Amino acid sequence: MHIQNTGQIQRPTFVIDESRARRNIAMMARKAQQSGIQLRPHFKTHQSAEIGSWFRDQNVNRITVSSLSMAEYFAASGWNDITLAIPVNLRELDPIAGLAERIRLGLVIDSEAVIPSLARRLTAATPIWIKIDPDYGRCGIHWQNHERITNLVKRVSDQQTLLFQGLLVHLGQTYDADSVLQIQTFHDRQVDMLADLKRTIADITGIVPLISIGDTPASCTVRRFEQVDEIRPGNFIFFDAMQWLHGVCRADELAAVLLCPVIGLYPQRNQIVIYGGAVHLSKDSVTMAKGERIFGFAALIENHEIGEISRQAPVIKVSQEHGVIQVPPDWFEKLQPGDLVAVYPAHSCLTADLQPAYRLTAGRPVSKFRLS
Amino acid sequence: MHIQNTGQIQRPTFVIDESRARRNIAMMARKAQQSGIQLRPHFKTHQSAEIGSWFRDQNVNRITVSSLSMAEYFAASGWNDITLAIPVNLRELDPIAGLAERIRLGLVIDSEAVIPSLARRLTAATPIWIKIDPDYGRCGIHWQNHERITNLVKRVSDQQTLLFQGLLVHLGQTYDADSVLQIQTFHDRQVDMLADLKRTIADITGIVPLISIGDTPASCTVRRFEQVDEIRPGNFIFFDAMQWLHGVCRADELAAVLLCPVIGLYPQRNQIVIYGGAVHLSKDSVTMAKGERIFGFAALIENHEIGEISRQAPVIKVSQEHGVIQVPPDWFEKLQPGDLVAVYPAHSCLTADLQPAYRLTAGRPVSKFRLS
Repeated sequence: MHIQNTGQIQRPTFVIDESRARRNIAMMARKAQQSGIQLRPHFKTHQSAEIGSWFRDQNVNRITVSSLSMAEYFAASGWNDITLAIPVNLRELDPIAGLAERIRLGLVIDSEAVIPSLARRLTAATPIWIKIDPDYGRCGIHWQNHERITNLVKRVSDQQTLLFQGLLVHLGQTYDADSVLQIQTFHDRQVDMLADLKRTIADITGIVPLISIGDTPASCTVRRFEQVDEIRPGNFIFFDAMQWLHGVCRADELAAVLLCPVIGLYPQRNQIVIYGGAVHLSKDSVTMAKGERIFGFAALIENHEIGEISRQAPVIKVSQEHGVIQVPPDWFEKLQPGDLVAVYPAHSCLTADLQPAYRLTAGRPVSKFRLS
Repeated sequence: MHIQNTGQIQRPTFVIDESRARRNIAMMARKAQQSGIQLRPHFKTHQSAEIGSWFRDQNVNRITVSSLSMAEYFAASGWNDITLAIPVNLRELDPIAGLAERIRLGLVIDSEAVIPSLARRLTAATPIWIKIDPDYGRCGIHWQNHERITNLVKRVSDQQTLLFQGLLVHLGQTYDADSVLQIQTFHDRQVDMLADLKRTIADITGIVPLISIGDTPASCTVRRFEQVDEIRPGNFIFFDAMQWLHGVCRADELAAVLLCPVIGLYPQRNQIVIYGGAVHLSKDSVTMAKGERIFGFAALIENHEIGEISRQAPVIKVSQEHGVIQVPPDWFEKLQPGDLVAVYPAHSCLTADLQPAYRLTAGRPVSKFRLS
């Protein structure tokens, strides 16, 4: 990763390699196209209108977001087919109904309890997805509960303003899988169960649901998508240390780092401290083989080139503004206070979310959404 | 905690009980006064000019911050004695020198390597603290290294623009202590070692350093401060689930909660899901007795009264926008989608940092600093 004008950087700065990110987008767009399915990327990872335009360049015209305010932000930059992929928050129903009048705003539900409110308030016909829980234990109706799912399909379809779309699933387990084989096993089992569920629903109701699945690990590692209609990965645009450790991406596909000033050098304990802590990186971590949590991996910047990710310099602790990195002894010959090091974050989505803005490796700033 | 006008709340909202927060401030101000020492509270916890004024009401006139931009924010609201309690970031030296011309800006160093740059760029006489590492392993010179510390004291004192103040310590271990007794033991050992170090420095250099210590757990649990000149606690204004679990505060001293809409109810597994995840709460956690990590504790709101913190409803998982809470079975008789629950966060500093603004329990918004 080649980087320019680092002399201007004073504080922790999230830097994006545009060519790598565009390559990642093109890879996923091609894969979806070859499988004959829709790509509806999750924009919660980058949260930027400008970066969204890189997806448009690959003919992506539908997206996923994780909050209403993010949906409003992207609608304002011309996206008119957006799925809000979190169970509908009834407290936001007025602004949701307003946005659903202006764009095609897909909503997600997992309970009959919200239907009366939706039916009463939504004035435009609104796409509805039923959230299915693939034994992940977050939201959704458990996928073995065919009866409840089928009943909810019928209830939605009975409402004039609710346009039933299909089943929406997030297979979160793939983020904890420790090998590509395990990711693929989880994915295959998911797809088989969804296919079974789809047949049951079609048999009982006569309605054939679409199938929308989500996660980056499976989207990147399965060869071809079978039996699904849509994928919603997000993280793949940047990837991160977690995806690299799990074998989901290659080192040269990592498209974002946090550049951090060195503020302390401790050769006695082979550690450095950076200005870059939980408020810049987040406290998300990967648990390593011996049970230790790491928050990212650091790399040196030499001759304007950011070193590739490696296990040699883990971020072992973060407090509010500081990060502690375990480093090889030869780093002390190369680093001075005030130098920058690059950190490949454990989880790029949360690191990106924390930034007021980004910077491209070419040096230009990129604006993004921020909750106000 | 009594709360008004919750009907207006649409999204995860950080709510502060002003009377509890003011009581916490008064408690710490009184304790410092009774010990005859200075209170220089850490404003990284609340990051708000308005809340800062509650400290002014207790005659606090010096503060601590954790970033230059936070120092600039508080300087703009009239604070003119601020310690920037993180080793100086040489990349920010120009704006640091600028601010040091306008206010009394204390800087922290732990290495001779930064002295030439400081001496060259600072135009105003600037207070300098030497950071000491009390075996915590973040920043600072290890406190047993009397020789390096003494040499650095001499080097600083030799510079005309650098006003040597003393030794600054953060005893981070107290956050991992599992009892008040252990916190006090850590604290006593720290104070003894600092007193010893102070005598050594005075004997060798003739300079008597001030002693500034920091952490909330010790500041709250020791009866009286001996042998220190200044304390810099921050978290005590709000406290949080971690401090409550460790016995540092009482349930009725917790002064902040995150109110979150319920978006999913799962009685089969005694769980609810809230709109409120890592981007609202942070991913900071407390590790419980059986090794499980929890991200906060939830409480019901009944008749405008927020229930006290208890262990009955832990937040067991957070993803970007969702939180999963394990709840007692009777909560399902009381909750509907769209209701609010209160979450006492694991770590209030990081939760507060994520907010664009706060709200008082009385209903009024409170603005705060935000990195731009």
